[in-house]
Amino acid sequence: MKSLRDFKDAKTRREFLEKELNINLDKISGFNFAEDQVIGRNIENLIGAIQIPLGVAGPIRVKGQGVSVKDYYIPCATTEGALVASVSRGCKAVTASGGATVYVENVGITRGPVFKTKDLGQAMKAEIWIEKHFKELAKTAQSSSSHLKLLKADYRVVGRNLFVRFYFDTQEAMGMNMATFATEEAVSLIEKKTGAECVSISGNFCVDKKPAWLNFISGRGKKIWAEAILSQKIIKDVLKTTPKKVVEVVERKCHLGSMMSGSLGFNGHYANIIAAIFAATGQDLAHVVEGSMGITTAEVLDNDDLYFSIYLPALIVGTVGGGTNLPTQQEALKLMNIRGVLEYSMVVGGAILAGELSLLASLSEGSLAKAHRKLGRSGKGKA
Amino acid sequence: MKSLRDFKDAKTRREFLEKELNINLDKISGFNFAEDQVIGRNIENLIGAIQIPLGVAGPIRVKGQGVSVKDYYIPCATTEGALVASVSRGCKAVTASGGATVYVENVGITRGPVFKTKDLGQAMKAEIWIEKHFKELAKTAQSSSSHLKLLKADYRVVGRNLFVRFYFDTQEAMGMNMATFATEEAVSLIEKKTGAECVSISGNFCVDKKPAWLNFISGRGKKIWAEAILSQKIIKDVLKTTPKKVVEVVERKCHLGSMMSGSLGFNGHYANIIAAIFAATGQDLAHVVEGSMGITTAEVLDNDDLYFSIYLPALIVGTVGGGTNLPTQQEALKLMNIRGVLEYSMVVGGAILAGELSLLASLSEGSLAKAHRKLGRSGKGKA
Amino acid sequence: MKSLRDFKDAKTRREFLEKELNINLDKISGFNFAEDQVIGRNIENLIGAIQIPLGVAGPIRVKGQGVSVKDYYIPCATTEGALVASVSRGCKAVTASGGATVYVENVGITRGPVFKTKDLGQAMKAEIWIEKHFKELAKTAQSSSSHLKLLKADYRVVGRNLFVRFYFDTQEAMGMNMATFATEEAVSLIEKKTGAECVSISGNFCVDKKPAWLNFISGRGKKIWAEAILSQKIIKDVLKTTPKKVVEVVERKCHLGSMMSGSLGFNGHYANIIAAIFAATGQDLAHVVEGSMGITTAEVLDNDDLYFSIYLPALIVGTVGGGTNLPTQQEALKLMNIRGVLEYSMVVGGAILAGELSLLASLSEGSLAKAHRKLGRSGKGKA
Amino acid sequence: MKSLRDFKDAKTRREFLEKELNINLDKISGFNFAEDQVIGRNIENLIGAIQIPLGVAGPIRVKGQGVSVKDYYIPCATTEGALVASVSRGCKAVTASGGATVYVENVGITRGPVFKTKDLGQAMKAEIWIEKHFKELAKTAQSSSSHLKLLKADYRVVGRNLFVRFYFDTQEAMGMNMATFATEEAVSLIEKKTGAECVSISGNFCVDKKPAWLNFISGRGKKIWAEAILSQKIIKDVLKTTPKKVVEVVERKCHLGSMMSGSLGFNGHYANIIAAIFAATGQDLAHVVEGSMGITTAEVLDNDDLYFSIYLPALIVGTVGGGTNLPTQQEALKLMNIRGVLEYSMVVGGAILAGELSLLASLSEGSLAKAHRKLGRSGKGKA
Repeated sequence: MKSLRDFKDAKTRREFLEKELNINLDKISGFNFAEDQVIGRNIENLIGAIQIPLGVAGPIRVKGQGVSVKDYYIPCATTEGALVASVSRGCKAVTASGGATVYVENVGITRGPVFKTKDLGQAMKAEIWIEKHFKELAKTAQSSSSHLKLLKADYRVVGRNLFVRFYFDTQEAMGMNMATFATEEAVSLIEKKTGAECVSISGNFCVDKKPAWLNFISGRGKKIWAEAILSQKIIKDVLKTTPKKVVEVVERKCHLGSMMSGSLGFNGHYANIIAAIFAATGQDLAHVVEGSMGITTAEVLDNDDLYFSIYLPALIVGTVGGGTNLPTQQEALKLMNIRGVLEYSMVVGGAILAGELSLLASLSEGSLAKAHRKLGRSGKGKA
Repeated sequence: MKSLRDFKDAKTRREFLEKELNINLDKISGFNFAEDQVIGRNIENLIGAIQIPLGVAGPIRVKGQGVSVKDYYIPCATTEGALVASVSRGCKAVTASGGATVYVENVGITRGPVFKTKDLGQAMKAEIWIEKHFKELAKTAQSSSSHLKLLKADYRVVGRNLFVRFYFDTQEAMGMNMATFATEEAVSLIEKKTGAECVSISGNFCVDKKPAWLNFISGRGKKIWAEAILSQKIIKDVLKTTPKKVVEVVERKCHLGSMMSGSLGFNGHYANIIAAIFAATGQDLAHVVEGSMGITTAEVLDNDDLYFSIYLPALIVGTVGGGTNLPTQQEALKLMNIRGVLEYSMVVGGAILAGELSLLASLSEGSLAKAHRKLGRSGKGKA
Repeated sequence: MKSLRDFKDAKTRREFLEKELNINLDKISGFNFAEDQVIGRNIENLIGAIQIPLGVAGPIRVKGQGVSVKDYYIPCATTEGALVASVSRGCKAVTASGGATVYVENVGITRGPVFKTKDLGQAMKAEIWIEKHFKELAKTAQSSSSHLKLLKADYRVVGRNLFVRFYFDTQEAMGMNMATFATEEAVSLIEKKTGAECVSISGNFCVDKKPAWLNFISGRGKKIWAEAILSQKIIKDVLKTTPKKVVEVVERKCHLGSMMSGSLGFNGHYANIIAAIFAATGQDLAHVVEGSMGITTAEVLDNDDLYFSIYLPALIVGTVGGGTNLPTQQEALKLMNIRGVLEYSMVVGGAILAGELSLLASLSEGSLAKAHRKLGRSGKGKA
Repeated sequence: MKSLRDFKDAKTRREFLEKELNINLDKISGFNFAEDQVIGRNIENLIGAIQIPLGVAGPIRVKGQGVSVKDYYIPCATTEGALVASVSRGCKAVTASGGATVYVENVGITRGPVFKTKDLGQAMKAEIWIEKHFKELAKTAQSSSSHLKLLKADYRVVGRNLFVRFYFDTQEAMGMNMATFATEEAVSLIEKKTGAECVSISGNFCVDKKPAWLNFISGRGKKIWAEAILSQKIIKDVLKTTPKKVVEVVERKCHLGSMMSGSLGFNGHYANIIAAIFAATGQDLAHVVEGSMGITTAEVLDNDDLYFSIYLPALIVGTVGGGTNLPTQQEALKLMNIRGVLEYSMVVGGAILAGELSLLASLSEGSLAKAHRKLGRSGKGKA
């Protein structure tokens, strides 16, 4: 039987499938990127494109690292009703309160190979060699790209195994790809110098696209914090609830509920907002996994205002490479009006703060399902 | 300032943003679904659509619950180079070995409200009331929809809090929405009869879109198992490695590495395959989170064949509702040629088995980065 | 060289070691149990006994399951200064407030064997066989002892493995031993009927003496809840702090701090109190592990009283068998003046509530280290 | 009513309880330490002592950090039949194979206070202040004791909270007490310089006596690795099984079983061996919790020998202070014939290796329950 890779282009491949399966793929055929732009870079066996509705939330005011203050629109590609409206409602409340204060720490993308050794002794010796020759190792790793810097390495020995976790600064790119190439260079040197044998260039000590306490505790990609202080009046006027009720939902749902569930996500729905922005701006959708981890906090302040914050230990994003180069994704990035990945991360942080606040406020006053019914909307995203 | 919701359609809203930000959104404007199909159902503040390249992997042979045997194509919407090719390579190896044997268990979608009580005593009494009146509760919950069935409930008391986890059969739909409405009915009855006060209709005992041991241990949505037995020859010819090497990567990376990382994902990259199929077929992309959990196993059998399996405790999917109704997503579902959500889940299981095997085989013989370089492809998805 | 098991009694064995190592073991030689009582039951290669100082905390008033009300003394064997005094202080505050309300659920001791199967199909079939023949299986298991009842079984299949978790009621005994014998009988029947091969009678699906979310979520041994409501005046007079301060420590330390640490212990020091009572009353000290899991909650009520509670999902205890038969341990049990393991568990629950409250109160007003210094005591147990 | 602290000595207090409860506490009265040695240091409300049978396992040959080679006896205080015999059997196999190679890393005891701040900004500033003034902070902390050194600090900010984790070298002492005093000094300085307010000197970022991924990943107290290579013949002669069978139990039980259970203990029964040695040598019994975490690995080597290893990330021990000063505990330490806490840790590592190997070997050939029955022994410790 003819293999799907043998077709010369999307059209002939699509036509083959249409005949083979007796179906019609007209809608999928309507794409506006160039085949040769994506083939060999983003996709194989291309037949067309999937379209996801794009809505815009905001604007939201973001105060970056206590410095700049700017209003941003948030592109959201989603099929989940009520999400964009909910994020927008949160943006309104946050902006009316002076905006979201956001902090970003560039932890670096990580790659964690696993080496097999003769015994504990060889593993310990290999670890020591790496520590002693870190500069040489960095030079070797960085020879693979001018856009990459090896920031640090962490180690673990167990039985006949050495795990190393390399942290890389990859500038504007998400950089998993660069990091893999750089790690390959480092691994070759380590193998040569220590006799340890690399079993897998990824030893799940990265940890890529799997929920893991190591990423929660050590961070991965970007760490994001955002906060806002909202008056009782704004909470009442915009969110139809009270600071006290929001705090109660955060404590009983996001904290106690997640403790009872053995969860790494002490929040309402970070994943919803991240998935929508990631789909809109060409991020790797599997990195929604790391983005679902984190902690929401809320307190009633002495003046009865609401203090509200979010914390994400591992947001994996880039503004060049991967899917960010595609035409519609490029336009969505333009719409965000950001300069580089740090500003991008700040806006994502603000958007999560807004979307999280809006959902928890809605839960706190029980209007959630009502709203959905009224709007005939899906509640599936609502927690 | 004019709010984004005040515009009458996507065009005027888009034009406002283009002027406001002095940008061009031509590509985003090119969408082929009807505005009135998505407004009030999938999205708000619509301005157009994002396009994600669609490739096709397979075919893969799937043996369902030891019954049917059929070959399937797998639609993958992704921007991550090498993924579709890698899944296809796995499909080839699995199909040449007789196909993937897949099992699906319909655990049911869950919704877990949290109630506030006067004290432990009231919480215990409320729990007992629910247990005793489960049938009445089911009748009430099911009054909200003819497509929904309350399967069971689980309970936890801590301090002045009662957490209840309802499991629902929602037929072909993913059903989070239905489940929320049904839970609202049940909650009203519980509040009336027990005096417990619902603080949040979702108490993170669901646990929706957050990684959690409760979902890993009790399951959520669909549980998926898939396995295949591959000969040394097929492993060598198609995957360029050996059973022994694959087993070593599974043990040192997927098992030991994930133990060392405190991960709930003892696998290579389930999330990659799930994200691509979910994006193609209109699933909720935030549910990639639950899909990233699970365990890959591999053994060298006495005859030196490779036994390879995957296990996912919580795959959240549907074939009606949400994004599945959109035109391109509908065509992608047609391309899968499945009848209903159980067959859909089986194919996803087969695809994950294939994609997981292909990646781990590639890691085991160190060709990964080489391949990427040769094809100028991204390795970011490769573990 | 002569083996330690070849000596006829503790005296000759001890003398051999004294000469061999040129040391003096006089103190160890002073024990007041009969050798033949412990040999072949509690210990091998006996040379004497270790003495641990025994203090008494309390009395504490305990309201059992909303029924009985009684005051109890709490025997604590510990070498950690300040612990007994701290628990006593908590007992005073709790008793002055009307006592601790305690609830106990007998989940049952668990044993979880792992079976190896040909493939997923055989594992699924074996699971179904067990479900269908549960009564027969129970009869077989219960044939091993008249003090044991098989309550239920839970199952998990992954790859070529079937895990089964048996829950047993073992009356007054902790019962791990009985459960193992009973499981052996059940396993033989399962092997014969299903062809599944038991690889280990304990497959860490028990999970015995290891921290695990499965035990947290499903419970093991006894589940314990305890609560008390304390007035501002009692909190001030006895504990030198305020309800607000206690709540703040619970939220920032026990909840947020444990979330940030990836802990299964959302509490201050359950393990301290459990270790002291276990050592005093002959429990298995390795079961302190399960006892360290659980959640403390605190709330300021509308009348400004403090609501305080503890929850332990897995307290593993017995009042017969194991070390409970030893002379000093027997006397310590007498001192508790309890009838059976449920009342014993209730008192332990009350003691944990008291000890937990006292520590958190002390932390909340910063007197901890001061107190230790004043008394020249060890703070090592204090959190 | 008269309070237990009002009695002048153990005798009068005991007599009061005997009359009050109409019981006899003769056995408890028989203790051979001086009251004034323990009062105000180890215990309050003293009435006597609990006696735990002491057995001796070994000797076991230990190769320390690839340097010294020495044989050690292992004192085990336990009431769990078969444990000492089982550890001894493992010692025999390991010693016959040349001994256990053990590595110890002194991570340091940790104390992790939580500070409340005005907002994220103040928390970030406080963190930066600590980093910049670490030397000054160390000097201040170390002023509290000449036996303590501040090794490093780690930080986390979430909402209005700053968590700091201090690592201390406390020489021969377990040192939790010293660490608390030193932390108090550091905290005062931080409060003065940064305006952050310490809410609790322990913020569960320590994490003391609770299972936690932070301790697993970062280590606490001492990290311990031990390994041995055993021939098929020794495995057969001493342990009645084969390398292949042991490896199968490690993979299906310790690895897969613990993954399925959400456990932090990927081992058989570290906690049993640790509890017995801790009780014998005066360690804090609540620290068995940290000791239950870790990973056992096993491999069949190319020559068919068995490679076997254990790894504990957090063993909390000392050889001075706490309960180590008591007479019987002092003798038990003498019996170990060790110089200092590092050598002590090495021997504990060797003992765990031996006890773990013996249990898993027994499970692998199904003799466990049989043996217990034959010896009328308890199987409760056997996994």
